[in-house]
Amino acid sequence: MNLMQSSYNIASLIRKKRDRETLKEDELRYIIRAYSRDEIPDYQMSAFLMAVFLNGMSDEETAILTEEMLCSGEVVDLSSIPGTKVDKHSTGGVGDKTSLILAPMVAACGVPVPMISGRGLGHSGGTLDKLESIPGFSVNLDLNQYKQVLKKHNVVLIGQTEEIAPADKRMYALRDVTATVESIPLITGSIMSKKLAEGIDALVLDVKYGKGAFMKEASRAMELAKRLISVGESFGKQTVAYLTSMEEPLGNYIGNWHEVFESIQALQGEGPQDLMEVTELLAGTMIFLGGKADSVEAGIEQARESIRDGRAMQKFLDIVEEQGGDTEVIRNPETYPEASVQWDVTAQDEGYIHTLDAYSLGVAAVELGAGRMRKEDTIDPQAGLVLQKKIGAYVQKGETIVRCFSNNKQATDNADKKIRQAIEIKASEPEKTTLISHKITKEGVVSL
Amino acid sequence: MNLMQSSYNIASLIRKKRDRETLKEDELRYIIRAYSRDEIPDYQMSAFLMAVFLNGMSDEETAILTEEMLCSGEVVDLSSIPGTKVDKHSTGGVGDKTSLILAPMVAACGVPVPMISGRGLGHSGGTLDKLESIPGFSVNLDLNQYKQVLKKHNVVLIGQTEEIAPADKRMYALRDVTATVESIPLITGSIMSKKLAEGIDALVLDVKYGKGAFMKEASRAMELAKRLISVGESFGKQTVAYLTSMEEPLGNYIGNWHEVFESIQALQGEGPQDLMEVTELLAGTMIFLGGKADSVEAGIEQARESIRDGRAMQKFLDIVEEQGGDTEVIRNPETYPEASVQWDVTAQDEGYIHTLDAYSLGVAAVELGAGRMRKEDTIDPQAGLVLQKKIGAYVQKGETIVRCFSNNKQATDNADKKIRQAIEIKASEPEKTTLISHKITKEGVVSL
Repeated sequence: MNLMQSSYNIASLIRKKRDRETLKEDELRYIIRAYSRDEIPDYQMSAFLMAVFLNGMSDEETAILTEEMLCSGEVVDLSSIPGTKVDKHSTGGVGDKTSLILAPMVAACGVPVPMISGRGLGHSGGTLDKLESIPGFSVNLDLNQYKQVLKKHNVVLIGQTEEIAPADKRMYALRDVTATVESIPLITGSIMSKKLAEGIDALVLDVKYGKGAFMKEASRAMELAKRLISVGESFGKQTVAYLTSMEEPLGNYIGNWHEVFESIQALQGEGPQDLMEVTELLAGTMIFLGGKADSVEAGIEQARESIRDGRAMQKFLDIVEEQGGDTEVIRNPETYPEASVQWDVTAQDEGYIHTLDAYSLGVAAVELGAGRMRKEDTIDPQAGLVLQKKIGAYVQKGETIVRCFSNNKQATDNADKKIRQAIEIKASEPEKTTLISHKITKEGVVSL
Repeated sequence: MNLMQSSYNIASLIRKKRDRETLKEDELRYIIRAYSRDEIPDYQMSAFLMAVFLNGMSDEETAILTEEMLCSGEVVDLSSIPGTKVDKHSTGGVGDKTSLILAPMVAACGVPVPMISGRGLGHSGGTLDKLESIPGFSVNLDLNQYKQVLKKHNVVLIGQTEEIAPADKRMYALRDVTATVESIPLITGSIMSKKLAEGIDALVLDVKYGKGAFMKEASRAMELAKRLISVGESFGKQTVAYLTSMEEPLGNYIGNWHEVFESIQALQGEGPQDLMEVTELLAGTMIFLGGKADSVEAGIEQARESIRDGRAMQKFLDIVEEQGGDTEVIRNPETYPEASVQWDVTAQDEGYIHTLDAYSLGVAAVELGAGRMRKEDTIDPQAGLVLQKKIGAYVQKGETIVRCFSNNKQATDNADKKIRQAIEIKASEPEKTTLISHKITKEGVVSL
């Protein structure tokens, strides 16, 4: 395909998207390549991105976008490693530490898990920030080390390198400052270009909706899930998505070390019910896609067994040791230093908890130090929240609902206020809500 | 109003427009001011402009946008010049030389005409380029000279100076390369900020629709006309608009000197019917708004009288002399040198002319040298087309329809082909079309 600059007029391509026309394959390829080569300036790209945001893209356009973003960098070749390589991606939420638990579970069951993760974004946490709360743990492996660790342990947990989808990095930075982030085709291109670059054969997606998710509405999450599946399958990768609720945080712990702590508990068979329900389903699906179980249900059983017999916990210790982390603190997490400021947010009334707004709790945790308010901020691994109660619990007035941890005295008042506002207590019992609502595959949508 | 940068987050303002919310007055003022001060980069402005293009602006937002663009530069104070100052603006077409004819007519009738014009754009001609075909004529007067000439002759014809609406200049350059030109609020801001800066008291607008206009559909032209009226009146300026058809060129001459030639004929009472119908209506309306006639009809009568008694022609000679132009060639236009290449496009069939596509003829004239294909191109004042027949005329096979003039032999084949394709001849007589369809004022729309 001839993608010489002279053949295209970027203003007329922006115009096409502006006028809701479908871009031809070569036109869209040209835009991404020329932008990567600095032949299209940011001011034209941002107008194009806004036109995409408002007018959308077809499945075919999204697949081409993804492929061009993918090919802007290196695509890791994992064919020398035997087995079906499977990763999981979550669209982000509060208290979502499933990666830390399922990666060792799935690897322990014989499925290689090549995982390149991200950092916290806005109110949501990031796997890399959580891993870095383990003293010594390095997520900055190069792609050669990435392959070596995967080969040795069947699992590796690293951050995005410079070689992975650089077009995504540039486009994301531009989208971030031009209000063009929450676009289904652009999110799809961003997620899938990075995941496909890992060298995976299959992918399980946890697409979240609700207060603490980036997609507030289930219908939008469904639309995103379908688009992700469409693009994944168009690259010949088995792709399965689940729609999961993010109204209240997942599990009881929010914050970086806090989430590692809860993950260790989970790997020792002490994980809370909601967290384990999501983690086991995702892990079971990965084991099934990895060809080590005949069904998702059988995969879930294997995943549970890997916890019962200690293999998953051992795998986690192996990863931590391999990537330079302190295994002593993993074995004895109660020795981890605690935050200097701790206080409880208690129930203002007697009754049933109806709301524990995941978004507000996520923002409060960020303010306490668990995330970045500005890009240059450093993260306090000890900062966070521990939920003593979840939605549906009956509480007495004055009973502790959230225990708060911070090293920043300036932040506590504001966070305390946010947390109080995030809690709603009523006399009547709340309706049970569905945690995992749908399974989406290329065959279609199944209600769960 | 406090418009400190720190109070605003440009990404969140882009988001508001993206989500179809109405911007608050201070938010919109901030965007234009901060962009003018280089505090908002082009890549954020272009995303904002695309959001405006696709989601629109309210009348109130458009008025605020216009005011900020206006206030980015100097607003000429003409209060020292007696009388109601009235200008005319056309949204652009092919063969539209009404400014050259009506400015001296209206000035001769005692209404001051302060006119700051533009250059040719795409397929359409520009008043400045036409004036510069007169040897020696200078359109580059500063704002002080502008006032002096207006005071002396009741009329002045200049180009946009650096001081006039610099925000429009920057925004237009950005819109031009980001496919955000054809937006009603952005066009309105651009036109009205420049016109209001002239120091006018009233404005007559010629909003064109059809093949040779920028708005192809009458409904879009109507929408633009209403928006222009709304903004003009919100600034306390009497504003009247006419919707006029631009299917075939206006008058018979296209090209810079050719249009000056036809204007001289018109000022001597020899103008073609369609050109005079539009010119007299616009002039009559200006004379009425300028308080020198009790009605538009009486204004038209005065305008006609100014031609009959030679005052309009004398006024034109006065302007040319004042602004450095050669009056001899105006008195004896047949002495103007002719283009080296001349040929006729003749009728391929016998029948009625149904189409003389103004857009294609405009593009052909540009290719022959009458306009700029690239910004750096120079204009050939001798290049152009003369229509020997107009729509509705009955022609014999081989009869000349268009006489073509160029000094660029390379361009003739292509232009010839375009001109042939612009002509459609049928056996049946075409239906009469309306030249001037509606009058729009703050009181409402009247069909004409």
